[in-house]
Amino acid sequence: MNIRQKISRRTFISTTASATAALAIPGIGKGIAYASSPNATLDPDWKDAGVIATRKSPYAKLHSVPVHAVTITPGFWSKRRETNVQSSIPSMRVELLEHGRMDNFLRLEGKSDAPQRGPVYSDSDIYKWLEATAFAMQSAPLPELRSQTDVMIREVVAAQEPSGYLNTYFVGDRKGDRMLWKTQTTGHELYCIGHLLQGAIAYYRATGDPTLLEAGMRFVDNFLLLNYGPGANQAPIVAGHPEIEMSLIELYRTTGDKQYLNLAGYILKGDPRIPLTNRQIVYMFCGVPFTSRTKLEGHAVRAMYACCGATDYYLETGDPAYWKTLNTLWDDLAEHQLYLTGGVGARSDGEAFGNAYELPNERAYGESCAAIGNMMWNWRMLSATGDAKFTDVMERALYNGINSGMSLDGKMYCYRNPLAFNPATGDKIRNPWYDTTCCPPNLERTFASLPGYFYSTSPEGVYVHFYDNSELQWHLESGTPLVLKQATQYPWEGAVQISVAPATPEEFTLFVRIPGWSKQNTVKVNGAQVANVVPGQYLPLHRKWASGDKVDLAFDMHPQVIHANPAVADDRGRIALQRGPVVYCMEQLDQTVATTESVNFPRYVARLTETTTSQYEPELLEGVVVLEHPGAFLPEPKPALYQAAVPQHASGEETKLRMIPYYAWSNRELSAMQVWVPYQQA
Amino acid sequence: MNIRQKISRRTFISTTASATAALAIPGIGKGIAYASSPNATLDPDWKDAGVIATRKSPYAKLHSVPVHAVTITPGFWSKRRETNVQSSIPSMRVELLEHGRMDNFLRLEGKSDAPQRGPVYSDSDIYKWLEATAFAMQSAPLPELRSQTDVMIREVVAAQEPSGYLNTYFVGDRKGDRMLWKTQTTGHELYCIGHLLQGAIAYYRATGDPTLLEAGMRFVDNFLLLNYGPGANQAPIVAGHPEIEMSLIELYRTTGDKQYLNLAGYILKGDPRIPLTNRQIVYMFCGVPFTSRTKLEGHAVRAMYACCGATDYYLETGDPAYWKTLNTLWDDLAEHQLYLTGGVGARSDGEAFGNAYELPNERAYGESCAAIGNMMWNWRMLSATGDAKFTDVMERALYNGINSGMSLDGKMYCYRNPLAFNPATGDKIRNPWYDTTCCPPNLERTFASLPGYFYSTSPEGVYVHFYDNSELQWHLESGTPLVLKQATQYPWEGAVQISVAPATPEEFTLFVRIPGWSKQNTVKVNGAQVANVVPGQYLPLHRKWASGDKVDLAFDMHPQVIHANPAVADDRGRIALQRGPVVYCMEQLDQTVATTESVNFPRYVARLTETTTSQYEPELLEGVVVLEHPGAFLPEPKPALYQAAVPQHASGEETKLRMIPYYAWSNRELSAMQVWVPYQQA
Repeated sequence: MNIRQKISRRTFISTTASATAALAIPGIGKGIAYASSPNATLDPDWKDAGVIATRKSPYAKLHSVPVHAVTITPGFWSKRRETNVQSSIPSMRVELLEHGRMDNFLRLEGKSDAPQRGPVYSDSDIYKWLEATAFAMQSAPLPELRSQTDVMIREVVAAQEPSGYLNTYFVGDRKGDRMLWKTQTTGHELYCIGHLLQGAIAYYRATGDPTLLEAGMRFVDNFLLLNYGPGANQAPIVAGHPEIEMSLIELYRTTGDKQYLNLAGYILKGDPRIPLTNRQIVYMFCGVPFTSRTKLEGHAVRAMYACCGATDYYLETGDPAYWKTLNTLWDDLAEHQLYLTGGVGARSDGEAFGNAYELPNERAYGESCAAIGNMMWNWRMLSATGDAKFTDVMERALYNGINSGMSLDGKMYCYRNPLAFNPATGDKIRNPWYDTTCCPPNLERTFASLPGYFYSTSPEGVYVHFYDNSELQWHLESGTPLVLKQATQYPWEGAVQISVAPATPEEFTLFVRIPGWSKQNTVKVNGAQVANVVPGQYLPLHRKWASGDKVDLAFDMHPQVIHANPAVADDRGRIALQRGPVVYCMEQLDQTVATTESVNFPRYVARLTETTTSQYEPELLEGVVVLEHPGAFLPEPKPALYQAAVPQHASGEETKLRMIPYYAWSNRELSAMQVWVPYQQA
Repeated sequence: MNIRQKISRRTFISTTASATAALAIPGIGKGIAYASSPNATLDPDWKDAGVIATRKSPYAKLHSVPVHAVTITPGFWSKRRETNVQSSIPSMRVELLEHGRMDNFLRLEGKSDAPQRGPVYSDSDIYKWLEATAFAMQSAPLPELRSQTDVMIREVVAAQEPSGYLNTYFVGDRKGDRMLWKTQTTGHELYCIGHLLQGAIAYYRATGDPTLLEAGMRFVDNFLLLNYGPGANQAPIVAGHPEIEMSLIELYRTTGDKQYLNLAGYILKGDPRIPLTNRQIVYMFCGVPFTSRTKLEGHAVRAMYACCGATDYYLETGDPAYWKTLNTLWDDLAEHQLYLTGGVGARSDGEAFGNAYELPNERAYGESCAAIGNMMWNWRMLSATGDAKFTDVMERALYNGINSGMSLDGKMYCYRNPLAFNPATGDKIRNPWYDTTCCPPNLERTFASLPGYFYSTSPEGVYVHFYDNSELQWHLESGTPLVLKQATQYPWEGAVQISVAPATPEEFTLFVRIPGWSKQNTVKVNGAQVANVVPGQYLPLHRKWASGDKVDLAFDMHPQVIHANPAVADDRGRIALQRGPVVYCMEQLDQTVATTESVNFPRYVARLTETTTSQYEPELLEGVVVLEHPGAFLPEPKPALYQAAVPQHASGEETKLRMIPYYAWSNRELSAMQVWVPYQQA
């Protein structure tokens, strides 16, 4: 018996203010579940689902572990996660309230007379923030946040209409535009509901409270499935901004109701009754069969979310056409479209993918949401395969193009994540608020859900994806309880010790990820060195494991001089530095030969040498390894834009270029920055 | 007595179909002027005004000569100009008619039931085409075009409303939006009227027929000046898309009525009653005092046209604040914003200027209209100063970023003019028609008006700006008739012979331009070498000139290897080739080591050497000088987007990189192209 059998979805909650007493559902705010006999009505596994609930997905090779099963102990990510819960999530709540995002709901309940505020997708800001909070509550109870979110959820649900429809923008004069196919292309109604469902599912998995989930199901069951779909008497659907697909599939995983999976499949296929222009099809990355796609294009977040939904669909159905397309698109990503930082979406124009190899640096868009979408997609591809190439991309995005999106104090966010910056342009890269505030709560939900990405299980054993001080308290798929502990200074040092402790000795495989960037590796099991350690693969350590067993990993932390494929015009004649998973950048303020004129930044050139030195500096930027690379500071160029002369070489003042981790840029005073540094042969 | 005294502007022509007989003005279609006693009623100098009528402008150092005074004889430009008149202008007329641009007018006269077609600025397509035709008719009578344009003008004028208002978009349901300030920001009503006025003035200068000019004046006098302006009882104006400013000043020059100049000044200053956002102010390049601008930004065509209007205003008023701003903006152009091709406007996003030194190649926007606006602005700056630095920019734009805008057969146009191209992107660069078809007729009017840019006069003598086989039949400002003839193979060869023939011997200065790119020059007057020839300046040749005198110029036509300022990230590690005024590019199809895979294009690298060879190939691309530069074809790179390895140098197959003039690119089969070629040190 699952939750859905107990939910009277064809009934509705009145939207009038006087009827909100009906919302005082027993259990809300008390940390226990909906309904009078909670244990009987709830899926017994609600607490044990991971970021995505792939446990029963027939085409998932790996299965998520729940967020609560992993404790990230003091180390690299603990500070970020503490800041996220202590500072980012609470301050974002204040921003959301101050910018009227809850008033939009309260107005519909007669509790606010503020006018509608924010763009068409503003409801999703609330839902994504709720999801961030819900993931945080999967790691710790957080009673103050719990009571704040309970109130907020009650207020959201009270704005739902008897039909199940819920959106604070398409009301009043705009009511007639609801779900018209033209509205669907830009109106974000289903995008908002998708985020509601994701937030509701995370909240349900945190608390067992299905209030918001029921509201989402009423929208889908009573409004959407009844009126929209492929049927002759139904109106067609286009996602507009993909998001609903993956959330419907997660709803299927949460409820077992195949209608949701089928609806996602219908949306992924596109409804030919909707006459889209080619431009719309490219930009929206939906509306035609997903399996007809041959490259990444259009709006990057839309494309990434579509790929997430399509991979989820594959995980449930095994449809080979989906799998073929997903791999074609992934190859396009990895070979043509991926920034060194894991960011994607080169163009600000349309927030879009550019042409193959179009990866500008100063003009890079690299929206935080797109890097997150990239990580989410690769998580799903990893779940399908257990192939470490997907984890490599996730790690690249996580440590760099995602991590850069939030300031160290957790209160300023990047929408764009460029790979070069000139302060003379006046661009403001970090801001506490955006009117389109998709990125800040997206970053918050990502950091809050991070423990759920560290490990997976499979029938063969357990996978270790990421490295940081942490403890897994979970069980093998055989049912044997398992504790794994990591002790490491990763990503600053390459040594990781994993202690393996099954409750009883048991034969299984521990799959430890050897990062693709680590060329020289040592792996020891209880002191004995393991052979055939291949970078970019999971190393299978099969044995009868018993409490007290230890695995020692040592990765190659030499700073690496990176070249881009020569087809990347913007990186030609340039190098970047990477150490471990961390991509570096130069900020002008760190240079010993510093100038205040940002137009002089191009005067720094690197030497083509691998004699980079590294040093941990505990006081700098909350503790980072700094690199120093031999370089020169060139004489001031002539002001002419073009000149007919061959420049002199190897001139300039010798210097050391000082580099900091890219994620930590723009956390001090305004300064020029670049990831790709021009080089000069000595 | 000037024309305006005869025009009853406060009367109007009925728009009803039955009243169109009133439009059968005597003289129309007969090649003679409006009104019963034409010679008495017309400004006697109408035929002698140049592209801009600076003869009486108090702050113009140089004065335009009329287009008809200059005959471009067979040589470089004659073919382009012939194609323009024989092919481009007639085929564009067919395109305009087929796309309903005239039906928009006819519908208002009850002569068409076609719906409104085209974007908000579609009327301007017609006006700009009329201007192109008018300039063509300043060089030759062209009776067929004359009768076609006369019909078209009658149809345009018949759509004018009794109030003087004329616009085919803001009618019917949209009538209530007319000239609201919010409409003005995007509605292009005054932009359209500006083009009407420019077309009408060119037509008047070609034919003496003031029909269209009167319609424009009725709009300005009866509708605009009465209802809009700085007065307390007037509504405010914002140009929205600058264009009206320069056309009002040309109307002032044509009529002597200072109201037009003052209105232009008011618009250039901006009306503080209109509450514009900072984004609008940047994008539109108007709405705040022109003199408050400190850099080029926003929509490039808007900025260039605003600068044209502001320079025209300076030429008439001498306002020093304008002059200061204009020079600040010009320095910004020349030092930070100018493509090697003379194109401007780096970003497709907003068709806009980028940051300083932001000059991407494949993604370059470089709209044809912006390059034309750049040339028009520099023409005005040159008129104010006689400084050859402005002519250098004009020549750079004309031979490259403008000339590239029209295919050799004259029927395909570029909107964008990128400096690199990858056919795998699917971009279509040359097209016969754009729904926003601003560029095609703009190119046509530019080539049609070209003779008017070759020479100027001043009280000291005569200026020679451009070189091509041509004949000036005009007079010195003293009144003495003067014939100048040029014989040359320019731009393929550097030798130019100018024969100077005043009707009677007279002492004056012949100012011959020494191009900035020409480092070694020889100038002889009647065989005697002249000293102190400085590149980038006008060489003043002062003497008593008499018929039979000859000046021989020899410019430096060695191919030049060009480097960009290192602050231009996109050109680092790259060279371009220029020979004379012609900028070169590589097309893949010309390379001896050719591959069909466009991703391999980056495998070609140039050697850093100046041993480029050149050869004229008469059969290629209608006759061009081809360059060959030492280079290499590198081995196929690994497909990885990033790799931790230092690439090997000086490897690859030695080859000659074959380069064609940039303007002639994309006139054969689809092929990759690049102006800036990566170099490798040998």
